[in-house]
Amino acid sequence: MSQSPPSPASVVELAEALIACPSVTPATGAVFDCLESQLAPLGFAVTRFLAGDAPDGPVENLLAVRRGPEGTRHFAFAGHLDVVPPGEGWTSAPFQPERRGELLYGRGAVDMKGAIAAMVAACGQIPAEAGTLSFVITGDEEGPARHGTLALIDLMRARGVAPDLCLVGEPTSVSRLGDMMKVGRRGSVNIWLEVEGVQGHVAYPHLADNPITRLVAMLAELDALVLDEGTDWFQASNLEVTDLACGNPATNVIPARASARISIRFNDLHTGQELARRVAAIAEAHGGTAQAVISGEAFLTQPGAFSGILADVIRAETGIEAELSTSGGTSDARFLKDLCPVIEFGLCNATMHKRDEAVAVADLEALARIYRRVALAALDTGH
Amino acid sequence: MSQSPPSPASVVELAEALIACPSVTPATGAVFDCLESQLAPLGFAVTRFLAGDAPDGPVENLLAVRRGPEGTRHFAFAGHLDVVPPGEGWTSAPFQPERRGELLYGRGAVDMKGAIAAMVAACGQIPAEAGTLSFVITGDEEGPARHGTLALIDLMRARGVAPDLCLVGEPTSVSRLGDMMKVGRRGSVNIWLEVEGVQGHVAYPHLADNPITRLVAMLAELDALVLDEGTDWFQASNLEVTDLACGNPATNVIPARASARISIRFNDLHTGQELARRVAAIAEAHGGTAQAVISGEAFLTQPGAFSGILADVIRAETGIEAELSTSGGTSDARFLKDLCPVIEFGLCNATMHKRDEAVAVADLEALARIYRRVALAALDTGH
Ligand SMILES: [Zn+2]
Ligand SMILES: [Zn+2]
Repeated sequence: MSQSPPSPASVVELAEALIACPSVTPATGAVFDCLESQLAPLGFAVTRFLAGDAPDGPVENLLAVRRGPEGTRHFAFAGHLDVVPPGEGWTSAPFQPERRGELLYGRGAVDMKGAIAAMVAACGQIPAEAGTLSFVITGDEEGPARHGTLALIDLMRARGVAPDLCLVGEPTSVSRLGDMMKVGRRGSVNIWLEVEGVQGHVAYPHLADNPITRLVAMLAELDALVLDEGTDWFQASNLEVTDLACGNPATNVIPARASARISIRFNDLHTGQELARRVAAIAEAHGGTAQAVISGEAFLTQPGAFSGILADVIRAETGIEAELSTSGGTSDARFLKDLCPVIEFGLCNATMHKRDEAVAVADLEALARIYRRVALAALDTGH
Repeated sequence: MSQSPPSPASVVELAEALIACPSVTPATGAVFDCLESQLAPLGFAVTRFLAGDAPDGPVENLLAVRRGPEGTRHFAFAGHLDVVPPGEGWTSAPFQPERRGELLYGRGAVDMKGAIAAMVAACGQIPAEAGTLSFVITGDEEGPARHGTLALIDLMRARGVAPDLCLVGEPTSVSRLGDMMKVGRRGSVNIWLEVEGVQGHVAYPHLADNPITRLVAMLAELDALVLDEGTDWFQASNLEVTDLACGNPATNVIPARASARISIRFNDLHTGQELARRVAAIAEAHGGTAQAVISGEAFLTQPGAFSGILADVIRAETGIEAELSTSGGTSDARFLKDLCPVIEFGLCNATMHKRDEAVAVADLEALARIYRRVALAALDTGH
């Protein structure tokens, strides 16, 4: 008896299969087996590897490439299979995908196993001769992200596999699928401030040097900074003091030391290093010190051909005019932008990182169609 | 066989006996037995009692009164038998008084068993008919002081025993015995400040309300306050921020709450309550709250007859012109001033609360002479 070939899985089935593999960050194993089993039948050559050591690793990464004919372009889908912990209070089990009405529930439904399922479904509908397609998928985007997409970029460079354009499937839509894409992200730098003084008795302040007085003056000056007024594509850079510490239990003692921590989210008028130097100068003017850790630089994929393709397809599929935004936190796009132009577009983020995370089935299907048409158009550009 | 009466103990012997009784605050027992045994032979009626419960008690207090003839005045010596912990690194054992050269070493030598010994020696040289003398001695001045001198004042009021003048034997001299007396003390108030905000992600500051921003502005305004320029007898009131706290470990989170603590040492242009209200108004203007605890009000024993007696005697015994000061921390004089005019005068404070606390034997002897002449002159005033 001969069997007829199995009909291709629907995007909902692909998403359900991924959601059913628990993958709290950092993810390894089963969820990658699942994705590999979805990609291999589509002709992708799959490479999986572990990177990093404790405490930031090991994390699993997956690079899948389906080479097109010589001379064709290369379009990459990027994303992550790890999810944030489900927390308490779910209506159904977070790692047992469940359809209730129009919605599919499960941790990762929108961030971002649903989007990866849409990418897989899209690729199932793209002929091999259209060009080279790849999946750049990490198991550590929600965690420290030190051995995830960065390691995948290293591997691609080592193999000489550089995409021409990259689409990251983060959930960028806000109220309706298609209302927002991200063409850049702000940069982020955390800076630890410390002031040393001279301890003493409050009754004899002339014999002491209160570090809190100088820290308060320093923070007041930092709070008053206007870094910029924003740009065409970015909101104004913003500085927040996120912690204060002194730890002096004695009411009659002027302490020896006080500290604070600030976080700056900045646009592409700045670099992390320039801001770190500027804050350090203010800290030093008040007799303090500053230690900066840059989490990511600001970047912008200049709106143009790539965002135009995406906007056209979104408009055609949903009737919505997508906003080009650079708002929000950081994502792995901050690494991928070193490889090629990168834009983020995906599902509605209302339930991401929350209990009862859910995606509309209709959105999953529409996203698969959008991803397919975007990939086809992107592969076709420049011909 | 008949015995000749024992010769009266020298001030050094009296001090050595008191120092030999360990009495880390709160003091009870042996050190009070010792003082009682010194006072009883001089004709003092001694009352001892325990006051307070854990954790601030029990503490021992002693009131000794030698009544003079009807119509004579009442002069009180006040002080404390408790000492601060000796700490490490002493050359000799802290509770084994040791004479090396001109100095007598031991915890409490200057603060203030030496002074109490000088008071006892002085009283041994004052005839009973000169007037009423008393000792108002607590075992808890260095600790919380909630059940010490306050309880003694209650007892004196209950018995209708109110001194006309009171001398506290705190070590007020700085470089040479006699160079400073204290005619008042600044008040002290500690205020706990708190600001509640709305927690959020640093990437979306418009959805949060950073309490640190408001706390910093509040503290900057408080640091800029000029409470006064000082008075004839007081230095300017002073505000110090003594602690900061937030406790936010997450670099990407705007915290929900931040707090600080301030200490104000103020002169007699202010009351603790007025300052607490003023700080609360500033705190509230920045959306915060303030909780004040007043440790003591400022007071001044107006320089005049009493300080004049003391200055004259000091000049006669030492050749030094005593400075009339209100500097330094708080002392039990802040309670005793409600009873009668009170001035503090005692040994040099260079080694107080330090290891190898020591008093010059010559200073002990001079202080006993000064106390005797002051008491005699004070009892004589108004006749
Ligand atoms: Zn994500
Ligand atoms: Zn003392």
